[in-house]
Amino acid sequence: MMRQAGRYLPEYRETRERAGSFLKLCLTPELAAEVTLQPIRRFNFDAAIIFADILLVPYALGQTLTFTEGEGPRLSPRIDRTELGRLRDAVDRSVTEPVFETIRRVRGALDPQIALLGFCGAPWTVATYMVAGCGTADQAAAKLLAYRDPMTFAQLIDRLVAASADYLVEQISAGAQAVQIFDTWSGVLSPEEFERWCIDPVARIIAEVRRRTPEAKILGFPRGAGTLLRRYAERVPVNAISLDWTVARDYARDIQSHRPVQGNLDPHALRAGGDALLRAVDATLDTFSGGPFIFNLGHGILSDTPIAHVEQMLARVRGH
Amino acid sequence: MMRQAGRYLPEYRETRERAGSFLKLCLTPELAAEVTLQPIRRFNFDAAIIFADILLVPYALGQTLTFTEGEGPRLSPRIDRTELGRLRDAVDRSVTEPVFETIRRVRGALDPQIALLGFCGAPWTVATYMVAGCGTADQAAAKLLAYRDPMTFAQLIDRLVAASADYLVEQISAGAQAVQIFDTWSGVLSPEEFERWCIDPVARIIAEVRRRTPEAKILGFPRGAGTLLRRYAERVPVNAISLDWTVARDYARDIQSHRPVQGNLDPHALRAGGDALLRAVDATLDTFSGGPFIFNLGHGILSDTPIAHVEQMLARVRGH
Repeated sequence: MMRQAGRYLPEYRETRERAGSFLKLCLTPELAAEVTLQPIRRFNFDAAIIFADILLVPYALGQTLTFTEGEGPRLSPRIDRTELGRLRDAVDRSVTEPVFETIRRVRGALDPQIALLGFCGAPWTVATYMVAGCGTADQAAAKLLAYRDPMTFAQLIDRLVAASADYLVEQISAGAQAVQIFDTWSGVLSPEEFERWCIDPVARIIAEVRRRTPEAKILGFPRGAGTLLRRYAERVPVNAISLDWTVARDYARDIQSHRPVQGNLDPHALRAGGDALLRAVDATLDTFSGGPFIFNLGHGILSDTPIAHVEQMLARVRGH
Repeated sequence: MMRQAGRYLPEYRETRERAGSFLKLCLTPELAAEVTLQPIRRFNFDAAIIFADILLVPYALGQTLTFTEGEGPRLSPRIDRTELGRLRDAVDRSVTEPVFETIRRVRGALDPQIALLGFCGAPWTVATYMVAGCGTADQAAAKLLAYRDPMTFAQLIDRLVAASADYLVEQISAGAQAVQIFDTWSGVLSPEEFERWCIDPVARIIAEVRRRTPEAKILGFPRGAGTLLRRYAERVPVNAISLDWTVARDYARDIQSHRPVQGNLDPHALRAGGDALLRAVDATLDTFSGGPFIFNLGHGILSDTPIAHVEQMLARVRGH
């Protein structure tokens, strides 16, 4: 599942409490490894995904990062033309090293049959937080900067391309068998902006990661890309594409004919449970099980999802 | 433009102040007519769109409606199986009559060459507010009710289909030359839920409106529908489809080959102005001007949009 670890698990809540803060949980390898392994122990998934946060990259580039309960993340100062010049040229290794150590620990503790995934945020999505200083409903601040001062915005994206490629290469070196690039906010752009700020930067990250680790397995998740998914599938040489739950069934099968697909159960169906969940699981299986496919949610699990519903979903998928 | 009247206009802010509350502004025909006409006087658009709100229908069905500055709308009580039974069977005419009176006044004051549009929210979108009691980031409350208790949710949708059809027929009788059905939150549903809660109800509204006013001109706006747009275009017999700004250019032209298209400039490009605005206007014109097309924004105008940018956009479109 996307965000396998998290608040829907009591053992996660206990470890999160022990860590004191969300950021400390991400950056303390012993605890981050523990919460990465918890869902594997409980559900025996085929793959573990490292516990971390997409905003560790801006933190490692010099922005201050805080997570306040109920408020979401805060980055400061907000990036504009002036502040861009004050960012580091490359990531601060003292920030990212704990993530690599977490990967080494998890890889050491994990059954060799179970894959370990690393990840980063895509440059566009990470930039929306860096420019606004927080999460936003419509990503307006980054969109405005990109429209008004595309040179500055392109420099920010270039910085993120380089930092993200380094970060993924190091994750792979530490023991991640595959990495996923999450473009959570790719669905708010016009076709031309999507080409420039989503497709191009992710393609450049992949080229650099493959140059340095040619066998790298890379998944892309352009959430909400809608009718731009086909272009993404054609232009971005990922090994597999994650789809959200809104994609038309025929369109989704067409994407699968270009690239293996991961997805795409509606997290609200998992939250709801019952017959609706079974119907939604079956619809996903019917759509994709004729081709290369990784069953997954179409976005992160909701924090109030009952564990019994996860078990119900797994029984249905494993019984298929 | 979508939401032609509004906070980006000083004359609107002055009238809004005079009305005292947003709801009073909607329900006072003299003032609602005034703000409907203001953008026509200033920009000489080809069509006026009546000033009202999609939540007048739940208000007319018996929910309490308040708009608090900076908080957005509130509806109470929230609709569940019990509260559904306490809604009215049909709209309270004392609530909707001022909207029809506004239409009569505007039609009387408007140049006969300028079309007047009425509108309503689509049942799914209106239901998301009725169930949550407010606007939400992910429409979770309505999605959960629809998954867990589809019978109750279907009854709510049925009530909205009947009320919306009546409301549109009366708008047309009062002088609206066309009506638009806004499905602002249609982009959060899986293909099967989209079919059931967006396509079916809107198609039923259209059938009923056409039965009673056969010449009715109806536009549909399934915002964010992405790869489900083609299905909407095939199944919903609207006279034209409004597109948001995220649709791939080739996909959008394919939709235009099925139905006339309205749209689809990114409101953030209008907010940004300058070269980015001109490029975005040109991209929309290049995409659609070979077929039946109404230039428009791809969603509502942002309240901090400079008037000079609207003028810049209009000069570009009119110079085409």
